[in-house]
Amino acid sequence: MRYEEFTIEGRNAVLEAYRAGRPIDRLFLLDGCQDGPIMSIRREAGKKGTPVKYVSRERLDQISGTGKHQGVIAYAAAYAYAEVSEILDAAGKKGEAPFLILLDNIEDPHNLGAIIRTANLAGAHGVIIPRNRAVGLTAAVAKTSAGALNYTPVARVTNLAKTIEELKKEGIWFVCADMGGTRMYDLNLGGPIGLVIGSEGEGVGRLVREKCDMTASIPMKGDIDSLNASVAAGVLAYEIVRQRLFR
Amino acid sequence: MRYEEFTIEGRNAVLEAYRAGRPIDRLFLLDGCQDGPIMSIRREAGKKGTPVKYVSRERLDQISGTGKHQGVIAYAAAYAYAEVSEILDAAGKKGEAPFLILLDNIEDPHNLGAIIRTANLAGAHGVIIPRNRAVGLTAAVAKTSAGALNYTPVARVTNLAKTIEELKKEGIWFVCADMGGTRMYDLNLGGPIGLVIGSEGEGVGRLVREKCDMTASIPMKGDIDSLNASVAAGVLAYEIVRQRLFR
Repeated sequence: MRYEEFTIEGRNAVLEAYRAGRPIDRLFLLDGCQDGPIMSIRREAGKKGTPVKYVSRERLDQISGTGKHQGVIAYAAAYAYAEVSEILDAAGKKGEAPFLILLDNIEDPHNLGAIIRTANLAGAHGVIIPRNRAVGLTAAVAKTSAGALNYTPVARVTNLAKTIEELKKEGIWFVCADMGGTRMYDLNLGGPIGLVIGSEGEGVGRLVREKCDMTASIPMKGDIDSLNASVAAGVLAYEIVRQRLFR
Repeated sequence: MRYEEFTIEGRNAVLEAYRAGRPIDRLFLLDGCQDGPIMSIRREAGKKGTPVKYVSRERLDQISGTGKHQGVIAYAAAYAYAEVSEILDAAGKKGEAPFLILLDNIEDPHNLGAIIRTANLAGAHGVIIPRNRAVGLTAAVAKTSAGALNYTPVARVTNLAKTIEELKKEGIWFVCADMGGTRMYDLNLGGPIGLVIGSEGEGVGRLVREKCDMTASIPMKGDIDSLNASVAAGVLAYEIVRQRLFR
């Protein structure tokens, strides 16, 4: 599903992309290759915190759209990432209590796109995703976001638990979505808030969950396990919207 | 995206499927073909109300997985459809006011699957979809429903507006999702209710909208047009859940 236009191949092209400040989601390097240009690319990747994967020539040939990868393929993000501080600034400029949505390892681009769309319409000031083990701002995400990526900033952080810890010092309360939590109507979600949504299979990870102040559940009457992740995010985000309107 | 296992090809196979009562979503016949077996298949399709499309041999060859279609290809539903009366009976047996979700031409199988999943967990008694111009219960829908199709009945009707009219006589109120409507919190959605959700691009069609008693909107603060259809369905379904709990 990754569009070719966002794959950058070859040593010069990838190095240029880094030097132009283009956001790179993931870097694939030929295993064992250690010459000068490759080392420069590794240095740039280190500075920017790009996850690097060392793979075989066969794998690179598979990923390659041009066949001329020279041992280097980068996946570029379709949109630029924001800083967490920019998201808080956006809330401040509007004179609103911060409302953030944090995603713990959402892997499905359709879910990420739909959640960015929800964040925009629910009035959240931004979305925070982890750098590793999650989908980035690919073309498929941009498409499913239906334009919301042009308005709603998305920040990428190395360690979601640590980011939560830092944001708590700013007075933001964190609520994590979990079936075992308190019914969402019975929580006070009206203040400065970060809503944490987990991946479909595994929910919110333990380390992240332990940093949260509250655990919220959506009432469930049915026979199956859980809502689709983007639907759950929508229902919880709109409970926050409702409490902001009426509390 | 349609799985081969649910495509039935060839005259005998399709006729057998009809006679075994297998639900057929759509039938493709070779244009101009009028011999005995084809006429029998057309009669069965007429009895069951299957939408029939007359297409060229080239188109049939494209759709065909086996290359042996003999001028006939049927798309079988992965799950059996229920009757609207069975959905009402299910509500009655639980001693609950009916809660239905009606979908006006949802075309995306992921949205349909996610909405059936939401219906199950929000405690809706069933989902009603139109026979034409909408996705049916394909394998992709079954997969995205995450098992909900085993529990939540889905009925297919010829004319959604007419079905609404009939159900209104049973005392069910209909609320249609529309951006121009009354804010959902300001409506009484606590009684016997049918929630009508439109397609992503076009919303709820005029004829269906005119049959509804109320029009509900989700408050939107953002810059883009609309939520993803399955997210909007989730937010509205859970406003109904909330009102049923607290009103």
